[in-house]
Amino acid sequence: MHSLLFKTVAVVGRAGTPNLDEPIRRLATLLTAAGVKVLLDQATAEEHGITEHQDVSRDNIGKVADLVIVLGGDGTMLGVARLLAPYRIPLLGINQGRLGFMTDISVDEMDELVIAMLHGEFIPEERILLETTVVRDGHEIDNALAFNDVVFSRGNTGAMIEFEIFIDGRFVYSQRSDGLIVSTPTGSTAYALASGGPILHPSLPAIALVPICPQSLSNRPIVVNDTCAVEFLLTRAQDARVYYDNQSHCDLQEKDRVLISRYRNTLRILHPNSYHYYDTLREKLRWGERL
Amino acid sequence: MHSLLFKTVAVVGRAGTPNLDEPIRRLATLLTAAGVKVLLDQATAEEHGITEHQDVSRDNIGKVADLVIVLGGDGTMLGVARLLAPYRIPLLGINQGRLGFMTDISVDEMDELVIAMLHGEFIPEERILLETTVVRDGHEIDNALAFNDVVFSRGNTGAMIEFEIFIDGRFVYSQRSDGLIVSTPTGSTAYALASGGPILHPSLPAIALVPICPQSLSNRPIVVNDTCAVEFLLTRAQDARVYYDNQSHCDLQEKDRVLISRYRNTLRILHPNSYHYYDTLREKLRWGERL
Amino acid sequence: MHSLLFKTVAVVGRAGTPNLDEPIRRLATLLTAAGVKVLLDQATAEEHGITEHQDVSRDNIGKVADLVIVLGGDGTMLGVARLLAPYRIPLLGINQGRLGFMTDISVDEMDELVIAMLHGEFIPEERILLETTVVRDGHEIDNALAFNDVVFSRGNTGAMIEFEIFIDGRFVYSQRSDGLIVSTPTGSTAYALASGGPILHPSLPAIALVPICPQSLSNRPIVVNDTCAVEFLLTRAQDARVYYDNQSHCDLQEKDRVLISRYRNTLRILHPNSYHYYDTLREKLRWGERL
Amino acid sequence: MHSLLFKTVAVVGRAGTPNLDEPIRRLATLLTAAGVKVLLDQATAEEHGITEHQDVSRDNIGKVADLVIVLGGDGTMLGVARLLAPYRIPLLGINQGRLGFMTDISVDEMDELVIAMLHGEFIPEERILLETTVVRDGHEIDNALAFNDVVFSRGNTGAMIEFEIFIDGRFVYSQRSDGLIVSTPTGSTAYALASGGPILHPSLPAIALVPICPQSLSNRPIVVNDTCAVEFLLTRAQDARVYYDNQSHCDLQEKDRVLISRYRNTLRILHPNSYHYYDTLREKLRWGERL
Repeated sequence: MHSLLFKTVAVVGRAGTPNLDEPIRRLATLLTAAGVKVLLDQATAEEHGITEHQDVSRDNIGKVADLVIVLGGDGTMLGVARLLAPYRIPLLGINQGRLGFMTDISVDEMDELVIAMLHGEFIPEERILLETTVVRDGHEIDNALAFNDVVFSRGNTGAMIEFEIFIDGRFVYSQRSDGLIVSTPTGSTAYALASGGPILHPSLPAIALVPICPQSLSNRPIVVNDTCAVEFLLTRAQDARVYYDNQSHCDLQEKDRVLISRYRNTLRILHPNSYHYYDTLREKLRWGERL
Repeated sequence: MHSLLFKTVAVVGRAGTPNLDEPIRRLATLLTAAGVKVLLDQATAEEHGITEHQDVSRDNIGKVADLVIVLGGDGTMLGVARLLAPYRIPLLGINQGRLGFMTDISVDEMDELVIAMLHGEFIPEERILLETTVVRDGHEIDNALAFNDVVFSRGNTGAMIEFEIFIDGRFVYSQRSDGLIVSTPTGSTAYALASGGPILHPSLPAIALVPICPQSLSNRPIVVNDTCAVEFLLTRAQDARVYYDNQSHCDLQEKDRVLISRYRNTLRILHPNSYHYYDTLREKLRWGERL
Repeated sequence: MHSLLFKTVAVVGRAGTPNLDEPIRRLATLLTAAGVKVLLDQATAEEHGITEHQDVSRDNIGKVADLVIVLGGDGTMLGVARLLAPYRIPLLGINQGRLGFMTDISVDEMDELVIAMLHGEFIPEERILLETTVVRDGHEIDNALAFNDVVFSRGNTGAMIEFEIFIDGRFVYSQRSDGLIVSTPTGSTAYALASGGPILHPSLPAIALVPICPQSLSNRPIVVNDTCAVEFLLTRAQDARVYYDNQSHCDLQEKDRVLISRYRNTLRILHPNSYHYYDTLREKLRWGERL
Repeated sequence: MHSLLFKTVAVVGRAGTPNLDEPIRRLATLLTAAGVKVLLDQATAEEHGITEHQDVSRDNIGKVADLVIVLGGDGTMLGVARLLAPYRIPLLGINQGRLGFMTDISVDEMDELVIAMLHGEFIPEERILLETTVVRDGHEIDNALAFNDVVFSRGNTGAMIEFEIFIDGRFVYSQRSDGLIVSTPTGSTAYALASGGPILHPSLPAIALVPICPQSLSNRPIVVNDTCAVEFLLTRAQDARVYYDNQSHCDLQEKDRVLISRYRNTLRILHPNSYHYYDTLREKLRWGERL
């Protein structure tokens, strides 16, 4: 076996999940026994009353850890990914329930796989994130990262929004719809799929623009190169918002411009050697099942 | 020519539309000259400063008029239809812009067609409405009519809603989605179409249930008999609403039950003899156009 | 228990299905013991070498039986339904594998349910069929029934077909596509669903027209009253066909007219008292499952 | 103006198009006057009886020309592209009717634009092609290029086909459907779009797999990197075919394996400096139009 590639590992658990108590303690013990310095996410430690491992505030994880192990689901991964992207720290995901697209190791397999992975038995995968800037009257009023998608959406007045899309400075279309999903390949199996978007392989250097209930029947998803600068101009709305991974948002006003482009860093996810994207896809989508 | 079938005709114009001034005056003069008693909707009279005709508050139109002529678009028709359905008064729609599905006479054709129609040269069409009751803790908290659709929708937290659907008391499905559109045939060419629903001929005794971005990929639109009692039970939501024709709404809470059924009255729309539904459909959807 | 409602019952098995041997013998014995006169479909009897029951050629079933029990799947039901529709004989379906939409009794439940059903413990359901006539140069060249759908399709030249649709004599649209599915409610969960059509409740008096890969992006499924006369005019094709339930077909030429309308008889299907359409739908479509 | 970049230019016209007579003569004269050696495609010369320019058989164009100008539509471009891809000769497209995605200069603009383009005033664009090999019993039985798409399709028995897809040797899914479209970005606005596929920007290094009426409702389009090796294994079919750009085909049998990968050469298309992909897209799809 190769030597230990990650000396300091932070562990983050899904919030509000009492039954994560045992797996987190087990994982921390396992890591410590393997010679790893374990840092437990402060909120996770407090939720489960774990005091025997050193803790670290989530904001500081990026400064001290070599690897972050997430116990939870894809939603927890999203949040950690957005936080850690600036630090270029890899993530490893353990699901405590159903298989996730990114949390592809089950709690049951954890003991067997994790230590081997820390010694190099993994498949690394680089995934892009989107960086979004909201500009109002020439001033930047918001900036955020998204790992799945940037979603423009009507609010709860029920009225559709109207907007214009520019790519690399060229006008592409105006649209009246419930909204628009700007998705990474990672996000293509999430909300974008429910809205009729295509599945994009994670390695594809692409961004998908997927309309939500567009009034014009010829509006279809379009996939562009991830080097593109996408610009959204809100031309009419009573109550619109832009959401980042559906975890944070910014209220929009008419004439706001929202600029979206690939973030400078990619996020590295570590998969066990048995991982194959298509296997996960087939299982999640139940492909092969028939009426 | 047959005798005048409608003695008292109310005229309603689309709000906030200055260029309706001339057509409304022209129509009122035309009707008066034909021996019709004209009642001008009060809000319309005030907007355009028309004092030469008797006015009537919108709430009273149903009690005094034999026919209502609407100048505007399908949106104005919707509002008047919801208001007048209890009174069984027919509607006749004149569009002041683009052809509508229900406002199928243009201002230019108005002089030629309207008087003939008042003498019987029309095609009557009966359309259903939906009556909705919202029940919370056993108490009815809202009741409304809809001519196009009853739309359940997530609010602006961005989180999908979860609900169960029962038809005639039988459980049909649970769903996690952005929402659900319960549509009449009239509404099938509106929001329901943008969300992937089928077009329903107005004469079809049917109600369509069209999911909005459902998470399960096998959720598809379903069309049931309009005698069905549809029940919506909100099982999980942070901020959900039910909209009636996108003109009014009710905020919902978890465990609210919403009952939807065909309203006891149909609404009668009068079309000119030249009207054919498929012609309108073809023109609105630009069928026949190719890539 | 009520008296026996069906004295003479024909039994038809799915062809080419060796493991139907035992259930067919068991069913025939069960029926005989209950005082029913059993007639075994000749082809079924020969396939399984069953000689102890009287047989009947499939073409004569309609003339002598009061009820037909089908062992197989929905495909076998389709074929029998098309054959028996002229005779107004009810059908009862037993599936030997997965639950079907029409074969909703499993072989395991058969012993328990069938005899009770023969004594009246069933839910009858009437379903429409479509009658199709192909007219070339003013002459009728083909006539057929369909229970699921009438499908117009390009042949294997790979070229799209072009056609016009008329409903009740009115031009509806011209279309360039891979074809068109004209579906009953029964067929709405079959091929039409795969092509983007809506699910129609079996009790809905409706016919759906569902385009297959239409070139114009605004072509959508349309649902009309089942009293409508649908006419298909083939305007351009190299190699087109019309299929009836995908079990028989007629080659088409340019300028052929194909007339489709509801068949004069409905087909009666008997369900066990525990049957609920939505339960079947939910199980077949796996509604409730999430990504 | 720069010097002439293309000394020998072949001209190909759309077959069976009498009104191309004048534009072809005009173009040939224009080119000759500009000092270009014109070679007229033999079939084109014969169709229009043009004898004043040297002709060349289509198979030899690739060996002698520096550039090919196509007069016709996108279909003619497809055929020429497939033929010339091995020779790395650029194409320039002139439409004689409606704007095409690749034939983006109209006959009216031709005089003004073409000579300038020959002197370098153009935007070059590289587009991928797909190379397909059909393997039966270990032997290669067919090999072809496609510029738009490789389409697997059921034949005219009406029965769906069943197949398995492998990407880079990994099993992806089995599917029962009418067929599958494997599309380049160029083909994404053609048949793949009609079948529900996404629009792919031409610069995206991608291949889309778009199912045609799949029986499983969770089968969705998937987009993969264009470096992928796609393998199609036909597991069940009565009468299946693979089509290349819908211009040629190969009959398939069960167990045939079809290998698809990016062709070693790209095809270079020359656009006028005024060209913008999104403008063409918007015009072709009529984006911006509303119900």
